[in-house]
Amino acid sequence: MTIRVGIVGATGYTGLEAIRLLLSHPQAEVVVATSRADAGKPIAEVHPMLAGRLDLELTQLDASKIAQTCDVVMCCLPHGASAQTVKELVQHGTRVIDFSADFRLSNVPLYEKWYGVTHPWPERVGKTAYGMPEFFRDQIQDADVVANPGCYPTSAILPLAPLVQNGLIDASDVIVDSKTGVSGGGRSAKLAMLYCETNESIAAYGVGNHRHQPEIADLVQRISGTELDVTFTPHLAPMSRGILSTIYTKPNQASAKDVMQCWQDTYSDSVFVTPVDHLPATKHVAGTNFVQMTVREAGKRLILICAIDNLAKGASGAAVQNMNVMFDQPESTGLS
Amino acid sequence: MTIRVGIVGATGYTGLEAIRLLLSHPQAEVVVATSRADAGKPIAEVHPMLAGRLDLELTQLDASKIAQTCDVVMCCLPHGASAQTVKELVQHGTRVIDFSADFRLSNVPLYEKWYGVTHPWPERVGKTAYGMPEFFRDQIQDADVVANPGCYPTSAILPLAPLVQNGLIDASDVIVDSKTGVSGGGRSAKLAMLYCETNESIAAYGVGNHRHQPEIADLVQRISGTELDVTFTPHLAPMSRGILSTIYTKPNQASAKDVMQCWQDTYSDSVFVTPVDHLPATKHVAGTNFVQMTVREAGKRLILICAIDNLAKGASGAAVQNMNVMFDQPESTGLS
Amino acid sequence: MTIRVGIVGATGYTGLEAIRLLLSHPQAEVVVATSRADAGKPIAEVHPMLAGRLDLELTQLDASKIAQTCDVVMCCLPHGASAQTVKELVQHGTRVIDFSADFRLSNVPLYEKWYGVTHPWPERVGKTAYGMPEFFRDQIQDADVVANPGCYPTSAILPLAPLVQNGLIDASDVIVDSKTGVSGGGRSAKLAMLYCETNESIAAYGVGNHRHQPEIADLVQRISGTELDVTFTPHLAPMSRGILSTIYTKPNQASAKDVMQCWQDTYSDSVFVTPVDHLPATKHVAGTNFVQMTVREAGKRLILICAIDNLAKGASGAAVQNMNVMFDQPESTGLS
Amino acid sequence: MTIRVGIVGATGYTGLEAIRLLLSHPQAEVVVATSRADAGKPIAEVHPMLAGRLDLELTQLDASKIAQTCDVVMCCLPHGASAQTVKELVQHGTRVIDFSADFRLSNVPLYEKWYGVTHPWPERVGKTAYGMPEFFRDQIQDADVVANPGCYPTSAILPLAPLVQNGLIDASDVIVDSKTGVSGGGRSAKLAMLYCETNESIAAYGVGNHRHQPEIADLVQRISGTELDVTFTPHLAPMSRGILSTIYTKPNQASAKDVMQCWQDTYSDSVFVTPVDHLPATKHVAGTNFVQMTVREAGKRLILICAIDNLAKGASGAAVQNMNVMFDQPESTGLS
Repeated sequence: MTIRVGIVGATGYTGLEAIRLLLSHPQAEVVVATSRADAGKPIAEVHPMLAGRLDLELTQLDASKIAQTCDVVMCCLPHGASAQTVKELVQHGTRVIDFSADFRLSNVPLYEKWYGVTHPWPERVGKTAYGMPEFFRDQIQDADVVANPGCYPTSAILPLAPLVQNGLIDASDVIVDSKTGVSGGGRSAKLAMLYCETNESIAAYGVGNHRHQPEIADLVQRISGTELDVTFTPHLAPMSRGILSTIYTKPNQASAKDVMQCWQDTYSDSVFVTPVDHLPATKHVAGTNFVQMTVREAGKRLILICAIDNLAKGASGAAVQNMNVMFDQPESTGLS
Repeated sequence: MTIRVGIVGATGYTGLEAIRLLLSHPQAEVVVATSRADAGKPIAEVHPMLAGRLDLELTQLDASKIAQTCDVVMCCLPHGASAQTVKELVQHGTRVIDFSADFRLSNVPLYEKWYGVTHPWPERVGKTAYGMPEFFRDQIQDADVVANPGCYPTSAILPLAPLVQNGLIDASDVIVDSKTGVSGGGRSAKLAMLYCETNESIAAYGVGNHRHQPEIADLVQRISGTELDVTFTPHLAPMSRGILSTIYTKPNQASAKDVMQCWQDTYSDSVFVTPVDHLPATKHVAGTNFVQMTVREAGKRLILICAIDNLAKGASGAAVQNMNVMFDQPESTGLS
Repeated sequence: MTIRVGIVGATGYTGLEAIRLLLSHPQAEVVVATSRADAGKPIAEVHPMLAGRLDLELTQLDASKIAQTCDVVMCCLPHGASAQTVKELVQHGTRVIDFSADFRLSNVPLYEKWYGVTHPWPERVGKTAYGMPEFFRDQIQDADVVANPGCYPTSAILPLAPLVQNGLIDASDVIVDSKTGVSGGGRSAKLAMLYCETNESIAAYGVGNHRHQPEIADLVQRISGTELDVTFTPHLAPMSRGILSTIYTKPNQASAKDVMQCWQDTYSDSVFVTPVDHLPATKHVAGTNFVQMTVREAGKRLILICAIDNLAKGASGAAVQNMNVMFDQPESTGLS
Repeated sequence: MTIRVGIVGATGYTGLEAIRLLLSHPQAEVVVATSRADAGKPIAEVHPMLAGRLDLELTQLDASKIAQTCDVVMCCLPHGASAQTVKELVQHGTRVIDFSADFRLSNVPLYEKWYGVTHPWPERVGKTAYGMPEFFRDQIQDADVVANPGCYPTSAILPLAPLVQNGLIDASDVIVDSKTGVSGGGRSAKLAMLYCETNESIAAYGVGNHRHQPEIADLVQRISGTELDVTFTPHLAPMSRGILSTIYTKPNQASAKDVMQCWQDTYSDSVFVTPVDHLPATKHVAGTNFVQMTVREAGKRLILICAIDNLAKGASGAAVQNMNVMFDQPESTGLS
């Protein structure tokens, strides 16, 4: 069996990472890659690391053609633009894994408040599978659209959700302090993403108003049934890849041991989520779909620490994992 | 006037940074530099960036000789070892700026609890000037020993102390999430400090048990008179220099504007502490003695963000600033 | 079919990279991993990125046990120590891929001149397959010992050998200026390999006396039949992985086009060696076994530029490729 | 005495570095800073590291106003645009240090061949002081325009010129293999300069056609009287600052010792050029105006290695040094 995959918006970092992963996937083949700006060029001209590895010409997006040649599309467009394209692809009969935030949140007002745009396909908001097989496997399996999770939310929801669900921590007082690599900022020519602007420096950004904050709260609530009050602060660290989230919680009389036990129970069937004793570094999961998490007691607080690769489990790795679920493959195929 | 300076333990990063700063100080001259392991070598052999800039041979420490040739010593030894040397130097009549933690805390039990050693000069603990001229100028001026502040504490005390002192925040619930460059780990051959272990990776360490936690609490209390309950989590970021501290507080009905006003009032005479509107990055203070700090409202919290250079204001820059105070020079001489 | 692999000296970067690659190899399994210093520890304690991925305890080296449990050993010991171990393993009947330089050169005097040690198994020097399947496929297939190539030599021999062989360049006047990532320096606690010593800096080392110079000359001669006079200068660049070699040659009336044609002819059957039009960056081959090379005319010179990943094609990737050849697998299995 | 300095084109890296250096210059004051795109903004908004350090509003360039308020202008515009502005400033009576290449070369045809533009002030080409006080002190002293040297040329001319002048090396066969930090690429939003494009990677660029090649040849010839045939290959290394040039020469029966002696004789009065025994790293001169150079014998070749900071001695540091010469200050004022 071969899953024929299309990559829409293939010139960015998540598109490249998806291709990189699919090249070593025994059951998948990248058959289409689109780009508005670079259509007509060989893909290896845009991504020289694909030279001799993928012989494909970038094309303009054509939803009806894609429907004929692809079993699934990974849509790597920015929010707003993405929903419109997803709608068109689905209406032509293609299954889509959407990398944007357009179908992640539970309701349209929340989306429109945080993203400041009118949603082009509001009927599907809140009815789309959230692409985290650890919690939504069944919905993903049959979905025509999967909302691939945000990178930061992945690093926060996976450690938090089971603890909130099981009442181990106080959901009304949670802080997520996250540090990401620069690839999270995308592959477009922005001054702030220049090497000399980010190298040898760390800084916070989007303090108090980053769009991943409502995604974390919304999904933890969807999974646990409990409202989460979370303060989220992202930081840009001088590295290409990786997210480390340091999460400050107040326990409901739970110990670090209780937390580890809860995680082990929750993730006993998970290939990728790995509770560990050591303090995880982003290096420990770099280039992989793995999630390392641990917990430490610190006075009256429990500190959770979670490391992922923002381009892998935080984006393209999760997409491949979702694709495997959608096409009845073992979740780890092409990802181990 | 020339201040004759000795550097004890000159082969590490703080010793080198002190020398680098003193080379451009119009009133100071490095006349002695000691090293147990490298005595006899020209200093430029150990620090090749000093070739052609400082012609000095590393010597063994000799307290009586130093007393004759130096007006002040910057003692860059590790804790424990440092106190003993400081005692000897002072007894020979030399004024000392001590980079170690040995004289920073208010009392011996606190020191011995966190550092696990018997203090060699307990009489002076709690009676030594803490080298933060922004709060302890008078004591520093006349001191024979100045306890140069810890790097992390500097980045936390400067933003926190005035807010606690003025009752703007709740002192019972503060989190300091700090990120440091690798030079903070010192210049010795440790596996964990290898390039390939720290590059492209970020991780927490010392969670819940780092020795700078009591220093932050102790000093904020000494300045403000109010007990501080602080959770401190340091992280190692892939950069050589810099500390960014993201500090989560709960306001006592204070706004971000109140915080800025309080800082401006407190630091109106300070050359180096700079409240700013932008989100400070460590790059903005790299290689300088400046401190940039700002504040953001985020739901029910006030988030303080403070950037320093760990080797400058966090160590050797503060030492030069202290030296200027001790020898009646403008604080900024050699540091602007 | 499962190839049972032992990793001798598994705590370094090449050992880890070999394991990382073998974990995604469908026909291989790592069954033994040895370490003198860390025997008894779970391997994930030494390499936290293996947590949840490889459940194996590090053991002391026992050649007879290994013979019973392994089909092949990747020996990641330093030169000198390695030859002795290889000898022992082979005498117990195990096939070995040796990462050290001990069996790479053509004769004992050359080895002993450059490595300064007496060779413990001189009979096999010059009679061991050099692990570059692009030129020595047949010898590798039947070998009991394969001398895995040096990292720098790989980046120089692959572009140079066919040009010398076909008389396109003057073999008496070649300069190889190479830049490597820090992982090439190994995983031991050396001051020079600390983050703060190598970060934000580039420097030459081993100028005029690096041991890979004779390896380049020896192998190009073995392949082409022509003596090569080469000046080799390695540089340490502030990155974890990758080698870029910039090679200055004088053409024998050959053009850049002739060079590209010669490479395409030579490597038409090669999976990994990829002549490209663009200027290759180490990023283009990072984490892969691929080799990108190009050529530019510059006045009277032809400049060859070759990029590899020092840990992959420059070490562990080549080892897996060699293993595939030894066990009749497609060369690219586990490497694409 | 106060030298009033204007910075034209102050938003880039060289402009910022010039300001940074001038802030600690006891005899200089930055009184004007211009920017076409950001006029009207406080300079600290564009360069947040100047917050609290320089209170200046960016303005549009006005040559007549500048003539009234500035003793000298550092013109940080790109080639072509620069010559026109320099002409205007000089005609208004302002002395100018020009960071562009517009007045560096000896004749108009050479300039127009390599830069592809018609020179707006051809009368001054070949008659402008080249801003390398080590060789052109007298011309600089009285100049109304100083052509500040290129970064790569500085790292090549300083080691090469005295050796060619004294006949120690064969001027017909020289290779300069240079590695630079990313700040050399300027501060504009280009895809190729993004963090994720340059981090963890090294690559050659401009092979055989970089514009600094004729500058090296032209200046060495102007200094030595001997034509230089040089092959120049620049590389982009993953670091913010620094240039290392590895220079391959053939000696005219000269030894490494002869080279060192020649350099010591040539640079005996130089504050900044430092022949050293160790292999210089860019780290050894980072942030300083110093030049470290050494030599090694390698078979039939002499390899010269030279390290500078591209933003300091390679640009803004040289400009301050030139300014000191122009205004009768010690060369090292503000640079030690």
